[in-house]
Amino acid sequence: MALIVQKYGGTSVGSIDRIKAVAERVARAYRSGGQLVVVVSAMAGETNRLLQLGAQLSDAPYPRESDALVATGEQVAAALLAIRLHALGCPAVSLLGHQLRIMTDSRHGAAKIKSVNCDRIERVLGTGHVVVVAGFQGVTPEGDITTLGRGASDLTAVALAAVLHAAACEIYTDVDGVYTADPNICPKARRLDRISYDEMLEMAGLGAKVLQLRSVELARRYNVPLVVKSSFSEDTHGTWVGREDQAMENVLVSGVTLDQNQSKITLTGVEDRPGLAARIFGPIAEAGIVVDMIIQNAGADGRADLTFTAPRADLKRALELVRAVAGEIGAAGVRHEDQVAKVSIVGVGMRTHAGVAATMFKVLAAEGVNIEMIATSEIKVSVVVNAKYGELAMRVLHDAFLGENPALAGN
Amino acid sequence: MALIVQKYGGTSVGSIDRIKAVAERVARAYRSGGQLVVVVSAMAGETNRLLQLGAQLSDAPYPRESDALVATGEQVAAALLAIRLHALGCPAVSLLGHQLRIMTDSRHGAAKIKSVNCDRIERVLGTGHVVVVAGFQGVTPEGDITTLGRGASDLTAVALAAVLHAAACEIYTDVDGVYTADPNICPKARRLDRISYDEMLEMAGLGAKVLQLRSVELARRYNVPLVVKSSFSEDTHGTWVGREDQAMENVLVSGVTLDQNQSKITLTGVEDRPGLAARIFGPIAEAGIVVDMIIQNAGADGRADLTFTAPRADLKRALELVRAVAGEIGAAGVRHEDQVAKVSIVGVGMRTHAGVAATMFKVLAAEGVNIEMIATSEIKVSVVVNAKYGELAMRVLHDAFLGENPALAGN
Repeated sequence: MALIVQKYGGTSVGSIDRIKAVAERVARAYRSGGQLVVVVSAMAGETNRLLQLGAQLSDAPYPRESDALVATGEQVAAALLAIRLHALGCPAVSLLGHQLRIMTDSRHGAAKIKSVNCDRIERVLGTGHVVVVAGFQGVTPEGDITTLGRGASDLTAVALAAVLHAAACEIYTDVDGVYTADPNICPKARRLDRISYDEMLEMAGLGAKVLQLRSVELARRYNVPLVVKSSFSEDTHGTWVGREDQAMENVLVSGVTLDQNQSKITLTGVEDRPGLAARIFGPIAEAGIVVDMIIQNAGADGRADLTFTAPRADLKRALELVRAVAGEIGAAGVRHEDQVAKVSIVGVGMRTHAGVAATMFKVLAAEGVNIEMIATSEIKVSVVVNAKYGELAMRVLHDAFLGENPALAGN
Repeated sequence: MALIVQKYGGTSVGSIDRIKAVAERVARAYRSGGQLVVVVSAMAGETNRLLQLGAQLSDAPYPRESDALVATGEQVAAALLAIRLHALGCPAVSLLGHQLRIMTDSRHGAAKIKSVNCDRIERVLGTGHVVVVAGFQGVTPEGDITTLGRGASDLTAVALAAVLHAAACEIYTDVDGVYTADPNICPKARRLDRISYDEMLEMAGLGAKVLQLRSVELARRYNVPLVVKSSFSEDTHGTWVGREDQAMENVLVSGVTLDQNQSKITLTGVEDRPGLAARIFGPIAEAGIVVDMIIQNAGADGRADLTFTAPRADLKRALELVRAVAGEIGAAGVRHEDQVAKVSIVGVGMRTHAGVAATMFKVLAAEGVNIEMIATSEIKVSVVVNAKYGELAMRVLHDAFLGENPALAGN
C-alpha cells in the first residue's frame, strides 16, 4: 500500500475556509486508498504574529523560549486540520515534533534533524488513521522544543518521506509548480513538468522561492521524489522533482532566476599572497554573512582587485568587517555598490553542451546590459548586473533560451 | 531556601503590558531570594479564540485534537513571560505539561492528574532559574496532550506546590482576595484576611469564582497554604486559605454567595418506595448534569413531591429525562421553574453555634423573600428563592451577618 507525504504551506491553511478545502483534498486521497502523512505549516501570518509578540517583550527574545512560542503556530494548524478531518469522517491524529521524536540538535531557531523515530507514526498509520504532522519543529534529547528555520515545514515533510520510504512527497503551495522563470517578471514563463534535484537546488539557491533549499538537498540525498502542486486548484499536474534522466539532459536551460537583493564589495590593490582571502572572509563567515560570488584579478604589479557579493541586508556589517581588515593587510581601498542583481540560467544540459555561457553573454550584450561579474558551475551560469537591468536581463534570457522559438537552444 | 509557587490567571497576563507587569513582580521576588515556580494561564480571550476556530470546523471537535489546540494558549503565555524575564536579567525556563511529566488519564478536556515528576523542575530550580509553567495541561502515558478543565491552571499550581512542598501557593488574579460577598452586588462586602479550606470549598462550589473548586480540594488534601492576591495592585495582603483554626471558629459567617444560574424541577405525586430516586437521578447523572439540592416531602397518601435544582443551562435536557421517567414510575406530573437563585451563608463557626439558620430565615422573612427550598451542611445554609429576590437576599444577609454592626452575629 503506497504511502504519500503531503505538505501544505501557510497560505494553503491560511483561513478556516482554506483548512476546509485542504481537509476535503486529504479526505479524498484517504478514501482512494493508501497511507497518508500530512505536514502543515502555521496559518499564514501566524508565525509573524507570534514573533511580533515576543519582539514587544525583548529586543532579542531568548531562543529556547522563542522556539516554544512560534512552534504553537504549527500545533494549532495541525489540530485544526485533524478536527476538520474527523468532522468529514476521516480519522486523523495530529502529532507534534516531540510526539514524533523528531530529534534535533539544540541550535534553537535553526536546529538540524538528527533522527526521526517512526514507531508512533507507523502505529497510527497501521490503525487506518491519517497522520497530521506539525511541520517546522523538533525536540532535543532533553525534551526542549526546537524549530528548524523559516520555511522548514518542507524539510519536515521530506525527512518523514525519507524515513517512511514514501512513494512521493507532494508539496502543496500557492503556485502550481516550478516555473522556467518568475511569471511576475517573465510573462512567457511556463511550468516545468520535470526538473532534476541539481537544477532545483541551483534555482532554490538563486532565489526561486517555491521550495526550501535544505529540503531539496535532503530529498536528493535520500532520493525522495518531490511533486510541487497548487492547493488552490484541482489541476493534478504540478512539477516533478527527481533524479536527472536522459530527457532532462536534452534540455539546455531549465530556468532563469533573478536575485535582486545583492550587493557588491571590492577591495582594490590587495597584495597577491597566500592567506589573505582567509583573513578577509574569515570574519565575514563568522558574522554569518553568506558570500556568494568571489572574483580576484591579479594585476601585473603583484597586486589584485578582489570583488565579492553579499546579500544587500548584510552590506553594512560586511563593509565594516572588510574595512577593518583592509587596513591591516594594506589594501589600497574598499568600494561597494548596493544596487546589483544576479541573473542566472540553470540546466543540466550544460554538462554536455558547450557555448551556453557565450550565448548568454551575446544576448545580454545585444540589449546593452553590462556584465559586472561572472560565475559558473557545471549546470549554471550567473552574472551580476546593475540592478536596474535585472528584470530586463531575465526576460531576454528567458525568451532566448526558453521562449516560443528558442533559436539559441541546443546550439 | 523557601520555594514559592505563583499562579497568574488570564487577565493577569492578558496583554503585553500585563505580561511586563507580571515579569517585574516575578523578577522582584526572584531577586529577594528563594526559589520560584510561576504557573500561567492563557492570555485572556485566547482559549475562547482557539475554541472558536475549532467550532468553525466541527460541531463537536474531536477531544484529543481540541486539547492539542487549546493547550497552545498556555504555551504562548509561558514562553512570552520567560522571554520577558530573560530581558529583565532574570533567567527563566518555560516548561509544558509534557516536559514536566504532569501525567494524567486520557479524559480529554477534563483530565485528572495522576502524578507529577519533579526531576526536571528541581534540576532547573537548582541552576538558579525561575521555572515558568504552562498551566491547565498534562500528558498521557502515550504522550498525548490533555487539558484539565476550565480554570484548572489553579490546579496545576496547587499540584506543583504539593509535590514540591512549597511554602505557599500564591494565586494572582484580578481581585485582591476572597470577599465576604460579591462586591458588585454587596457594596459593603470586604476582603477576608483568612478563610478555611472548608469554607473556601463551599464558597467555590456555591458560585464564588475566585478559586477553582478542585484546586481547593487538592490544597486541603495536601495541606498547601493558598494566598489569593491581586496582580493589578501592589497591596501585599490578600486572603490566606488554610487549615481551620480557633480564631476562625469564632466567626459565625465568613461569606454570602449567590448563584443566579439555577433552575428547579418538581415531580409531583411520586410513589414513595425504594429505588425511585435512583431511577430518576441515574439518567441525569449519566448525562453529566450536576444536581445540587434535592428535597422530598412525603404526603399522608404515600405519595411525595420531589424537587431538585440543576444549572439553568441544563434545564431542557434534565426536563426531557425527567419526563421520560415520570411516565414510567407513574408520577402525577412534572413542574419546573427556570428563574430561581440560590443564596448561601458559609462559616465554620456554624459547627459550634446554633440558630444561624433560624436567623437567616428571619432576615429573609423581614424582607418578604419567600424561601422555596432549604439545604444545610455542617458549615453552610443554602436557600432557593425566586431569582428576582437573589441580589436583595444576598445584600440583607450580608448586612445582617457581616455588616458594620452585625447584631445577629455570634448570637
